[in-house]
Amino acid sequence: MRPNMSLDTETKLEWSKAMSHTPVNFQQKFSLFSEQWTPKVVAEMNDYQFKIVRLEGDFVWHDHKDTDETFIVLEGSLRIDMRDGAVVLNAGEMFVVPKGVEHKPYAEREVKLLLIEPRGVLNTGDERGDRTAQNDQWI
Amino acid sequence: MRPNMSLDTETKLEWSKAMSHTPVNFQQKFSLFSEQWTPKVVAEMNDYQFKIVRLEGDFVWHDHKDTDETFIVLEGSLRIDMRDGAVVLNAGEMFVVPKGVEHKPYAEREVKLLLIEPRGVLNTGDERGDRTAQNDQWI
Repeated sequence: MRPNMSLDTETKLEWSKAMSHTPVNFQQKFSLFSEQWTPKVVAEMNDYQFKIVRLEGDFVWHDHKDTDETFIVLEGSLRIDMRDGAVVLNAGEMFVVPKGVEHKPYAEREVKLLLIEPRGVLNTGDERGDRTAQNDQWI
Repeated sequence: MRPNMSLDTETKLEWSKAMSHTPVNFQQKFSLFSEQWTPKVVAEMNDYQFKIVRLEGDFVWHDHKDTDETFIVLEGSLRIDMRDGAVVLNAGEMFVVPKGVEHKPYAEREVKLLLIEPRGVLNTGDERGDRTAQNDQWI
């Protein structure tokens, strides 16, 4: 033990060193913004991005020609309409929309989501409009 | 409305049609198995797989030379030791281990995880042993 340092401080230093890596805490990240329909990147894995987003109301019909898109509901409830039906996701549930499948997310009340898709994918696919969000917004 | 069918039945049919797609419910999937250290695939996105797994105790040091690996804790607590420190993940937290970084997951009590990585990645990387699980086990 170094002189003039209490064991407690020493322990804290050790702990701080051991905790040199920081996890992404979804709740903490959501506390940093309140706007809806603006996905924020929280992590990357290879060329894929993890984005959190708050949605409420109706999105636009769109598809992604070149990639599947993953939705994981963290809080609330989300319906994804597709041309041949729909899927309802509650917290603790996920769904992968296959590439090329037209879909329209809808949330009656605000839902908190984790999205996973390749870097560079626009939220509205080929349909540019009011709902089109800027890409690569890290939080 | 068809004859001899109550509105209720009709409504249920409509609802069933509207629910033609099924989400992955993590809790329901975990209820189907109790063994630890055996990742089960629950979904795919392009050439990536989502796997759920129960871990308890110590894993082996390993790395993945060609890919990052994503850990999302659904229930419990996980420590991932790395050569330069560690990260502790609780439920609602995620961490991406960069490719080539040696790591060793550890859980004092059983933890339930969602793993995301490219199809075909072995859980123990290049270190084959008792902990090496069979790939592509769907649930």
